[in-house]
Amino acid sequence: MNKNYKYICKDCNTEFDSALIESKMIYLCPDCGSSKKNTPLKGVLKIEHDYESLKANYSKDKLLSITAGKIWDYPDLWPIDFNKIDKNDLEKLSLPSNQILRYNVDGRELSFQDETRNPTYSYKDRASILVALKAKELGINEIAAASTGNAGSSLAGICARLGITSHIFVPKNIPEAKRIQIQSYGANIYVVEGDYDQAFDLCLEVSTKNNWYNRNTAYNPLTIEGKKSAAYDVFINTKGNLPDYIFVPVGDGVIMSGIYKGFLELKILGLIERLPKLIAVQAEGSCAVVDFISSNRFIYKPANTIADSISAGAPRNLYMAVNAVKESNGFGIKVSDDEILSSQKILAYKTGLLVEPSCASTFAGYQKVKNKFEKDEKLMLLMTGSGLKDFEALKKWNEKLSVKSNNEWKSFLIKAS
Amino acid sequence: MNKNYKYICKDCNTEFDSALIESKMIYLCPDCGSSKKNTPLKGVLKIEHDYESLKANYSKDKLLSITAGKIWDYPDLWPIDFNKIDKNDLEKLSLPSNQILRYNVDGRELSFQDETRNPTYSYKDRASILVALKAKELGINEIAAASTGNAGSSLAGICARLGITSHIFVPKNIPEAKRIQIQSYGANIYVVEGDYDQAFDLCLEVSTKNNWYNRNTAYNPLTIEGKKSAAYDVFINTKGNLPDYIFVPVGDGVIMSGIYKGFLELKILGLIERLPKLIAVQAEGSCAVVDFISSNRFIYKPANTIADSISAGAPRNLYMAVNAVKESNGFGIKVSDDEILSSQKILAYKTGLLVEPSCASTFAGYQKVKNKFEKDEKLMLLMTGSGLKDFEALKKWNEKLSVKSNNEWKSFLIKAS
Repeated sequence: MNKNYKYICKDCNTEFDSALIESKMIYLCPDCGSSKKNTPLKGVLKIEHDYESLKANYSKDKLLSITAGKIWDYPDLWPIDFNKIDKNDLEKLSLPSNQILRYNVDGRELSFQDETRNPTYSYKDRASILVALKAKELGINEIAAASTGNAGSSLAGICARLGITSHIFVPKNIPEAKRIQIQSYGANIYVVEGDYDQAFDLCLEVSTKNNWYNRNTAYNPLTIEGKKSAAYDVFINTKGNLPDYIFVPVGDGVIMSGIYKGFLELKILGLIERLPKLIAVQAEGSCAVVDFISSNRFIYKPANTIADSISAGAPRNLYMAVNAVKESNGFGIKVSDDEILSSQKILAYKTGLLVEPSCASTFAGYQKVKNKFEKDEKLMLLMTGSGLKDFEALKKWNEKLSVKSNNEWKSFLIKAS
Repeated sequence: MNKNYKYICKDCNTEFDSALIESKMIYLCPDCGSSKKNTPLKGVLKIEHDYESLKANYSKDKLLSITAGKIWDYPDLWPIDFNKIDKNDLEKLSLPSNQILRYNVDGRELSFQDETRNPTYSYKDRASILVALKAKELGINEIAAASTGNAGSSLAGICARLGITSHIFVPKNIPEAKRIQIQSYGANIYVVEGDYDQAFDLCLEVSTKNNWYNRNTAYNPLTIEGKKSAAYDVFINTKGNLPDYIFVPVGDGVIMSGIYKGFLELKILGLIERLPKLIAVQAEGSCAVVDFISSNRFIYKPANTIADSISAGAPRNLYMAVNAVKESNGFGIKVSDDEILSSQKILAYKTGLLVEPSCASTFAGYQKVKNKFEKDEKLMLLMTGSGLKDFEALKKWNEKLSVKSNNEWKSFLIKAS
C-alpha cells in the first residue's frame, strides 16, 4: 500500500502535498503560519491520511491483534515509510506493551495509562520517535529542539538509539536534573540566555541555517502525529472498551491534540462509536488552555508552577488543544501546586506509581471532580513522566514530610547495638 | 496441578517441607544456617520444584507462547499459589514484555537485557514481586528489608502497588537519592546508626519481634527464586536462542545465583541444551566473588566503589554466586570506578540506555575482554538499574564533562537576540 497522506492547515484549511512539505522542511502553513514570542502558533499543520482506503484494511480484529507499543506493526496509519528503516532500529523504539494499570482508589476503579516506562521515561518519546524516524527516512542526521526538559532528553535519548546527532536549546533557568538528563545522552546542548520562548526562536534560526531537522513541539506536525499513538495503544490494551473520560495534563497542548487525533481517527475508521471525553488538567499558574475553553480568549501570562513539564505561558498548540477538549465533550480543570504535590504523594503511596508533578496533576484534577461522575463511568488518568525525572520535587516533598509529620511518616534513628 | 516444591539447604543438602518452612517463617537452614557480621550467609535455602512432573507440562512451544514479564502465566514454576491472589494485583506487577535491545557497538552486535523499565526501575523488582506475592498468599501485611537503596525502593514500590506495609532499614550513609526513592513510596524508613551489616541484623531482630515477613536479600530464599525469572524472560524473548555469554553485575550475588537457577531449570526441563556462560563483573573496590573464584578464599574487605548497588564487602550469597559462575563455565572480571563511569557515558551516547553505574560495569567488563570471544559468539549484557536512580553519579560525570572537554562536548552560552 502506498503512503497517501496530506498536510492540512488547521487555520485556513489549505491542503499541501506531503512530498513538498517534507522535502522542503516546511513546518507551519506557508500561507498563514506564524511563530511569535509569547503567542500560540498560527498555521499548525495536521496530517490527514486516506481514511477511506485505510478502512478496508484495518478491521477491529486486525488492530486488536497487534501488540501495543509498536506503531510499525500498523504502518499505514503513520506518515513514515518504514521500509526505509532498519527493522532492528525500530525494535529499539518499542514502548512497553502493557501500559494500563488498574487500581481501586477509595472505592472507585481508576485506570492509569503508564508512560513512565518509555525509553526516556516520558510521553514525549512518542513524538521524538516519529520525528527521528522521519529524519532516518529522509536521510537527515541532525535534529534540533528547544526544550525545558523532557522533550529535550527524549529527543536526545531517541537519537542516541538511532545514531542521530541531537542539538538541544534550553533556557538558562532549566532545572538542573533535566539539563543533566539531556547531556547524559550525548546531545549537543545550547544554554540560551533567555527563556523558553527565546530558546524556541533561536533553535529555529540555527536549525534553518544548518539544515537540521527541527522537533520544536507543535511546530513540527509530526510531534502531534507521534503523540496520537497513545490513543491506539489504549484502544489495543482495552480491547476497544475505551474509558469514558481521560484526564490529560496540559502544557503546550500537544499531548491533548495528539491523543484526540488518534481517537478521532479510530472513529473515522469505524472502529469506535464515540470518543472518550478529554479533560484538560492545568496548574493554576499555567492555565491558558483551560481559560480559553471558558473565555474563548488568550491572554499571555508568564507561567509559574512546580510542574515544569506543563509550564507554558503561551501554549504553542493552544487552539488545537482547546478544540480537542470541546469536540470530545470534555472540560478543563485547574489545580494548585499544593494539590499537585499532595497528589504525587498519594499516588505513590496508594499505587506505587512514582510520577512527576506534571502528571500528578491529573490525580489532583480527578480528586476535585470525582463526585461528578456516575458510578459505572470508566475513568483513565494519563501518567506522562517518571517521578525520577524531577528529583528536586521528590526531595522537597520528602524532606518536608520527615520533619513535620509523625502521623503520616515514621522516621526513626535507631542506635544499632 | 498441586504446588510441589521443597526447600533444600545449599550447604548440608537437607530437605525441608515447604509448608513447614513458610508457616514458621524460617529463612536459613534450621540445622546449619547462620547470619554473621561481615560474613557470607551459611545455610541459604534453595527451592526445588518437582521437575519430573513439570517436564510433561512445559514443552518449549508452550513456554514460548507465553508473554515475557508475567510469571503467573506459567504458574507451576513458582512457589506461589497464584489462585489466592487477585488477578488485577498480578497485572500491576507485570514487567515489560520486550526487554531485549540489540545494538551494533563498534562492529559487534551486543544484546542488552533491559531491566531499567521495571516497576521501580531495577532488577530487584523480580525478587520483591515474589516476596510480596508470598506475603499476600500467606495473608501477611507487613514486610521488612535492609537495603542500601534499590532493594528497599523496590520493596516499597511493589508493596505500595499491593497495599502492603513496608519497613525499610537503611544505613546512615545511604545515598540521598536512594533514601528519597524509598520514602516516596510511603515505606516506613528506619535510618540505622551503622552500616549495611548492622541494618541487616537490626532488620532481622525487629521483624522477628513484630512478625513481619523479611525480604533481606539472599536470606529470604524467595529473593533468589524471584531473580530466576530473568532467565525465563530471556528464553522467551530470544525464542530459545540463548546468548553464549551473559555479563552479570555482582554485588551480594543474588542476581547471579537467581539467573543461574533459571537457566539450570530450563536445562533440567529439557528446554535448552547448555547454559549461557555467566560472567561475574565486580568493581575493584568490591570484588569478593571474583576473588573467591580464583582463590577459593573469602577475606572481608570493606567495600568502596561508586557503584553502590554492587557494593558488598561480604556478599551474602557468595557461595551460590561462585558456584553459578563455575558451573556455567563462566569467569570473573574486575573493573575500576573510572572504567565504570566512562562505560556509563559510552552506553548512554551509543545506545540511549541510561543506566546506573552498577550495571554500566558490565559494559566496562565487556570492553576488557572483548577480544577473547569468537566473532559468532552471542553476548548479552544485563542492565539492572536506571541511571535516573543515581542522580549524583550522572551529575558528577556531566559536570566534569562540561567543564573540561570541548572535543567530546559542546556547551555554548549563546546570547539570544
